Amino acid sequence: MALTQSETETLANAVDDSMALAEDLFDRLATETADGGGVTRASYGDGEQLAHDMVADAARGLGLEVTTDLAGNAYYVLPGRDRSAPQVMTGSHLDSVPKGGNFDGAAGVVAGLAAQAAMKAAGFDPARDVTVMAIRSEECSSWFRGRHGGHLGSRAALGLMQPAELENAIHLGTGRTLGEQMAACGLDPEKLMASPPHLTARDVSAYIELHIEQGPVLVAEEKPVGVVTGIRGNTRARDGRVLGEYTHSGAVPQAHRHDAVLAGAELLTALDRETEAVLSEGGDIVFAAGQFGTDPDMHSLSKVPGEVRFTLDIRSLDEATLTRMRGCAESVAAEIEARRGVQVDFGGFSVSQPTVMAANHCRLLREGCRALGIPAIDIASGGGHDAQEFDRIGVPSSMIFVRNDNGSHNADEAMEIADFALGTRLLAWMLADAL
Amino acid sequence: MALTQSETETLANAVDDSMALAEDLFDRLATETADGGGVTRASYGDGEQLAHDMVADAARGLGLEVTTDLAGNAYYVLPGRDRSAPQVMTGSHLDSVPKGGNFDGAAGVVAGLAAQAAMKAAGFDPARDVTVMAIRSEECSSWFRGRHGGHLGSRAALGLMQPAELENAIHLGTGRTLGEQMAACGLDPEKLMASPPHLTARDVSAYIELHIEQGPVLVAEEKPVGVVTGIRGNTRARDGRVLGEYTHSGAVPQAHRHDAVLAGAELLTALDRETEAVLSEGGDIVFAAGQFGTDPDMHSLSKVPGEVRFTLDIRSLDEATLTRMRGCAESVAAEIEARRGVQVDFGGFSVSQPTVMAANHCRLLREGCRALGIPAIDIASGGGHDAQEFDRIGVPSSMIFVRNDNGSHNADEAMEIADFALGTRLLAWMLADAL
Repeated sequence: MALTQSETETLANAVDDSMALAEDLFDRLATETADGGGVTRASYGDGEQLAHDMVADAARGLGLEVTTDLAGNAYYVLPGRDRSAPQVMTGSHLDSVPKGGNFDGAAGVVAGLAAQAAMKAAGFDPARDVTVMAIRSEECSSWFRGRHGGHLGSRAALGLMQPAELENAIHLGTGRTLGEQMAACGLDPEKLMASPPHLTARDVSAYIELHIEQGPVLVAEEKPVGVVTGIRGNTRARDGRVLGEYTHSGAVPQAHRHDAVLAGAELLTALDRETEAVLSEGGDIVFAAGQFGTDPDMHSLSKVPGEVRFTLDIRSLDEATLTRMRGCAESVAAEIEARRGVQVDFGGFSVSQPTVMAANHCRLLREGCRALGIPAIDIASGGGHDAQEFDRIGVPSSMIFVRNDNGSHNADEAMEIADFALGTRLLAWMLADAL
Repeated sequence: MALTQSETETLANAVDDSMALAEDLFDRLATETADGGGVTRASYGDGEQLAHDMVADAARGLGLEVTTDLAGNAYYVLPGRDRSAPQVMTGSHLDSVPKGGNFDGAAGVVAGLAAQAAMKAAGFDPARDVTVMAIRSEECSSWFRGRHGGHLGSRAALGLMQPAELENAIHLGTGRTLGEQMAACGLDPEKLMASPPHLTARDVSAYIELHIEQGPVLVAEEKPVGVVTGIRGNTRARDGRVLGEYTHSGAVPQAHRHDAVLAGAELLTALDRETEAVLSEGGDIVFAAGQFGTDPDMHSLSKVPGEVRFTLDIRSLDEATLTRMRGCAESVAAEIEARRGVQVDFGGFSVSQPTVMAANHCRLLREGCRALGIPAIDIASGGGHDAQEFDRIGVPSSMIFVRNDNGSHNADEAMEIADFALGTRLLAWMLADAL
C-alpha cells in the first residue's frame, strides 16, 4: 500500500535532510580512495575495505544494526516490527574499477543509508526489516582474470558461487587466487563454501538497487531518474583470434595472402551491419569489439599481419537477439575462413541471460515518480548489476537509475546531488511502504 | 651483341664450376654471422663488416681489383679492354635484417663474384670494366629509426644522401646517429658529404642486380628465375589513428557511440574492396594494414574503443594506382568521420615512386633465358632494392629474381643452389657481352 501524500512529503523532506550525510560520505570516499583524478577501490582489496569501514561506521552512527557475511558483504539493518518476516533490501557495491568514478556502486549504498536515515528521522516504523547491503566485488571483471561468474560478492551471498571460482579467478594486481585474496582480507573462503547461502529467496521479499546510469540516455532525454525495465544479457568472446600468415607486405601477391587484419575487419563490419539491422527492426542491441589488435612483438608496417586478437561484447534485452548475433558471427566467420584461408577462433562465447525487472516493482516505481513529481522514463540497463543475481534466485528485483554525465568506469562520472536526492526519495518511498 | 650458342655454353659451364666458391661463401657467411637460427649482419655494424671482409678476400683471391668508397661500399673489378669506358655493374647488399636469412642481399654479391670468376676462367675479355658492388646498409629500415631515405649505402655512393640523414637516422642497437655509426666503422661521413658522388650516370652503363624473390610467386609458378619488370612504389601511413570516444559498452546506445574500431574496420574493408577492384581491372597492387590495434593501457572488453592506431602499406607498379588508393582512403575516411563522429588521421602519407626496369634489359634477360634454357616469367618486385637508386640517377637498371621459399627477412629463406646457378648463368650472360 502506497504512502499518503502527506507521508510522501514528510519522507521526501527527510531524504533531503539526509543529503548532508550523503555528501559527506561521497566527499570522504573520493578523498580517501583518490587515484590519479579518479578513485580506486580494488575488489577484495584496500580501497574497497576502506569504503566498507567508512560506511559501516556511518551506519552504526545512525543506530543501525551492522553485520557481515562470510563473503565480506555488509548489512545495515533498520529493524521492522516483524523481525522474522522476509526483509526488504536495497544496496549496491563499494568497489570500483581501477581509476574509476566515485558514484558507480557507492551511490546505491549511500542512497540506501540516506533512505534509512530519513525513515528513522521521519519516524517511519517499517513492517519488516529494511536492509542495505554493501556488496563486495561487483567490478570483479576489472580485477580478476580467469574463469569466474562475475558479481562475486552478491553471488557468494546468494549461494551462486562455485568452489572452482576461488581457484580460477586470479587477481590482476596481486596475482593471488580469489580464495587467497579473500583470506588476505581476513575472510574464510572454505567456510563460505561449506556453509548454506547467507540469503535465500525466503529471506528477501524484494531487492531494489539505485545506481547511476552508465550511459547518456537520461542526460539526452533531460530526465533525472530512469525506471529500469531490464538488464541486458550478453554474449561475449573474450579470447577471439584470427590466425593468418605473416608474409612480406610488398612481395606476396594479394591472392596468396592470409591477412588476419583484413579478415577481422570484414568480420566486424558484418557484425556492425547486423546490429544496424536489429535496431532498424525495433530490437534492442549494443555491440562492440573493445579490444582488437595485432601483436606488437610480431607486427610491422611491412608485414602482412598473421594474427589479430579481439573481444566481442554483444548485449540485448532479448535472448533471441543474442542467439541471432552469435549465429551471424559464426556463419560470417566460416565464409571468411574459406575465402581467405584464415582461421577464426572465437575462443567460446559466454552467455549471460537478460533480466526482466519485476513488473510490480516497475509499476510502483512509475507510481512513486508521479507521487513525488519526479520526471522519469523507462530505460534498459546496459551494464550488469547485482540486482540480476537477486532476480536469478527468485527475489522480485528492480533498479532506479540516476542521471549521470560522462558515463561510468572513469574519473569523470558526473552525478548531480539534486538528481541523487530525487532518486533517493523514490528509493525511500519504495522501501518505506510500497514493497 | 649477344653471345654465340657455343660461348653461352662455355660460360654456363664455367658458372657451374664457380658454384663451389659460391657455396663455400654462403656456408661461411651463415656460420660466422649465425644468430638464433638465422643470421644477423647489422647495417654499419659487425656482421656486415665481417661479410665485407670475407667476400673482399675472396675477390682478391680471384685476382680482382678491390676498392671501397667513402660510404664503405666495396667494388670488385674485372678490368675491361677500355678502362675509361662506363662500367657494367652488378651487386647487392651484405647486411641483413636482425635474425634474417642468409641469401637476402648476399646472393646478389656472391652471384656477381661467381660470374666474374666464370668469365675469367672461361677466358672472356670484357670490353669494359665489369664491377661487382658490395653495398652497405640496404636493410637500414630495420636498423635505423628516424627520418632517412633508406638504401643508405647505394644512395651515399650515388650522391642521393642528404647531410641531415647523418644526424636524423638513429641506430636501434647502439643509439648512435648514422654519422657516428659510420665513424665507428672507420669511415669519414663529413668527407663523404663534402665529396662529389662516387658514381654518376656517366660512370655506369648498366646496373643489374640478382636477388632472391621475397614472395611465393616463383615457387607457385614452378619457375627458377623471374625477370623483374619493375619495383613497386608505395604510399604509406606510418602513424594512422582513428579517434572516437571510450564509453561503456553496455550502457551507451549504439547511436550515441563513436567507436574507433568499427570505424577503422569499415575503412580497411573499403580499402580491401578497392584493392580487389584494381586487381579485377588488371592493375598491379598489394595492400596491408600491418599494424592495427587498440591501446592496451585503455581498452577493455566492456568499453567502446575510443582509439585505434594503424599503418597502411599500399604498393603498386603504377603511380596512378597509388594516387587512386590514397584518394579512396581519404574520401572513405571523410564519409566515416561524418557518419560516426570520429576523427580519422592518417598522419600523412609517404610516397615512394614505382621504378620501371630498363626495357632493353628486360628484353635481353628474356632472350638470355631462352638461350640458356632457363624457365622464367616476368615478375614485379614488391620490396625496394638498390637497383631503384641506380634507376633514379639515370642508369639503365634491371633485376633477376631467384626462386626462394618461405619469403625473406626470416631464418627460413630457402634458395636452392641449382636455382641460384641458373640465375647466375643469366647474370654472367648479361655481364659478359649483352649489356
